[in-house]
Amino acid sequence: MAATDPVENLQALIRCPSVTPAEGGALTALEAMLSPLGFRVERMVASAAGTPDVENLYARIGSDGPHLMFAGHTDVVPPGDEADWSHPPFAADIDGGMLYGRGAVDMKGGIACFVAAVARHIEAHGAPEGSISFLITGDEEGPSINGTEKLLKWAADKGETWDACLVGEPTNPDVLGDMIKIGRRGSLSGRITVQGVQGHSAYPHLADNPVRGLLQLTHALMEQPYDNGTKDFPASNMEVTSVDTGNPAVNVIPAKATAAFNIRFNDTWTVESLQTEILRRLDTAASQGTLRPGRDPVRYDITWNERPSHVFLTHSDALIGSLSEAIENVTSRRPALSTTGGTSDARFIKDYCPVVEFGLVGQTMHMVDERVAVADLELLTDIYGSFISNWFRHARSI
Amino acid sequence: MAATDPVENLQALIRCPSVTPAEGGALTALEAMLSPLGFRVERMVASAAGTPDVENLYARIGSDGPHLMFAGHTDVVPPGDEADWSHPPFAADIDGGMLYGRGAVDMKGGIACFVAAVARHIEAHGAPEGSISFLITGDEEGPSINGTEKLLKWAADKGETWDACLVGEPTNPDVLGDMIKIGRRGSLSGRITVQGVQGHSAYPHLADNPVRGLLQLTHALMEQPYDNGTKDFPASNMEVTSVDTGNPAVNVIPAKATAAFNIRFNDTWTVESLQTEILRRLDTAASQGTLRPGRDPVRYDITWNERPSHVFLTHSDALIGSLSEAIENVTSRRPALSTTGGTSDARFIKDYCPVVEFGLVGQTMHMVDERVAVADLELLTDIYGSFISNWFRHARSI
Repeated sequence: MAATDPVENLQALIRCPSVTPAEGGALTALEAMLSPLGFRVERMVASAAGTPDVENLYARIGSDGPHLMFAGHTDVVPPGDEADWSHPPFAADIDGGMLYGRGAVDMKGGIACFVAAVARHIEAHGAPEGSISFLITGDEEGPSINGTEKLLKWAADKGETWDACLVGEPTNPDVLGDMIKIGRRGSLSGRITVQGVQGHSAYPHLADNPVRGLLQLTHALMEQPYDNGTKDFPASNMEVTSVDTGNPAVNVIPAKATAAFNIRFNDTWTVESLQTEILRRLDTAASQGTLRPGRDPVRYDITWNERPSHVFLTHSDALIGSLSEAIENVTSRRPALSTTGGTSDARFIKDYCPVVEFGLVGQTMHMVDERVAVADLELLTDIYGSFISNWFRHARSI
Repeated sequence: MAATDPVENLQALIRCPSVTPAEGGALTALEAMLSPLGFRVERMVASAAGTPDVENLYARIGSDGPHLMFAGHTDVVPPGDEADWSHPPFAADIDGGMLYGRGAVDMKGGIACFVAAVARHIEAHGAPEGSISFLITGDEEGPSINGTEKLLKWAADKGETWDACLVGEPTNPDVLGDMIKIGRRGSLSGRITVQGVQGHSAYPHLADNPVRGLLQLTHALMEQPYDNGTKDFPASNMEVTSVDTGNPAVNVIPAKATAAFNIRFNDTWTVESLQTEILRRLDTAASQGTLRPGRDPVRYDITWNERPSHVFLTHSDALIGSLSEAIENVTSRRPALSTTGGTSDARFIKDYCPVVEFGLVGQTMHMVDERVAVADLELLTDIYGSFISNWFRHARSI
């Protein structure tokens, strides 16, 4: 039957050069897999000033609950110099048991396996007792403005609701079955600018060096831990990622100096409470004045990045249990329930339904010779298939 | 007699647009004043790769000792937008008792007065009982590479020696007679670069943020005073004049970060002992490791500016006494003996003979509407004339 082979599915997807933000034929290829299975496929183009238009896809089979969503993306990062690849990045060659190509693990591989798992489920059991949908964007590797966030809203505005979501991003550090992501830290960025008084470095009493104040403020941002971690999360971590003055003249005291920072934070904080804590630290340090005695408090401005990522943690036992059980059945491994790593599109989905992430082994993602073991594609298809059965059984028993 | 009027001398010099490094006719105008007085005038052009050629002038009257040198420069800083000036910057207009023009106080005015003082001295007493020379550069406001330093060496190589030098830079903060400069702080600059390990800010354990190390090192450079000042000098002062990372991506921990610094230092230090102290501070801070526990010591490189200015202090009672006495005679003020302010070409001259600095009031130097009171030109000519008489009397009595 169509689309039951994850290797063929993945080869078809890799051969579409969907380097973000290009669709590259990948969504059309996916539509060609899903439509024959009975999915109603819709394509949606999102636009925003200053960003490229992006094609997205939403497909659903069934019209009742319970409703399971699979989310992911077909866009990929650029291959870099194709001459560096041992196999062409869009050829999907298989060599020595490995399937090569950009997107093999991040994350056309995850999509290919979930499609195969659904196809096999339908082949074995007929249409699901409920609904399954695919929410697939072409804007995950780009600015993520015309992707998952808008696609969710577009679908929800049409009346779509979901009971659970699995994101198929690569989550395993080393071996398939290592790790499920059950939450993500938040991310908050900003920039502080310290105002000084420009002057000649031979006459420091007539000037006020903003570098002194910037050192105090950045020290206050970094010196003490924000927390000691929580049951589910590592400690929040602040990095000052850039300090800049841009003063080329060594005999001139500059007029201002800036620093950019990024904090990855756990569920001790909300974006709002963390902003309050950061301002408290800065104001305390600023009020202590500069290192130069007798000066006024440090004068600074702060601007916050407009799109912070909120922290989230999924508590659904049905979702996490169904997935863990499937992984243990197939691999005999008990996956770690992790909240490490960067942000993902799960941060948007968690506002609509419980969400977890599980996919392939991530080691070669974004690298030259990105590749996946053919055996892993079969294993992941089995895991996803077992998960689908488990989840519907759990969901219908509630 | 020729050249006895400082106002006429200054007008002739201001009307030569000698914006650094252009000669602009100014040295030719000066030669036209000195030759009729009996000076042997030589012009010397200095060159160096990467810098403009610069014209310089050396003129001497007399062939025996004692030998008094007057040093200065005819180059001026650019006028900026000439429309901002109430009188054109190269017109030398007199209005309301003020003579306007670029270089009026810095320092064509000083040269004009010394020429007038020498001309009057010769008119009254004949040629000096010894020698007087003018050592005038066209590269004081520029990079100072093809100016006083090379002109001194060129003259010394021809056998010239001097017993004392007066530099005619503006030294008075408010009123003529306020201040003689009898020394200058040194100036030492450098740049430190901290090496880190680039990475994603979501995975800080895989990276090593060089900003942390840079904060520690710059804090160590600035936190403690280097000294408490000496009898003749204010405390040494360190300024970190630029901190730079240039990292545009807030989710990336940068690979390196740099800081530039400049210290103005007193006679507690030599350049060498100060470099040793700076390295001691940096090495101590670096060995304490970064703010992140368990990391290696901070790895840093340092580069020193190639042309530090050495500190100097003039001890000649004959020179300082002759000048102070002349100032007090003419203005009834006892000048402060100061070592404040930036560097000057006196830092080169001190290697050949005792040197002090005294000139006009510096308030309008480098500004729009640079100007000098006509009355001050007469007063300074009187001071310089009295100084010449005093100094030769002192020098011949030793």
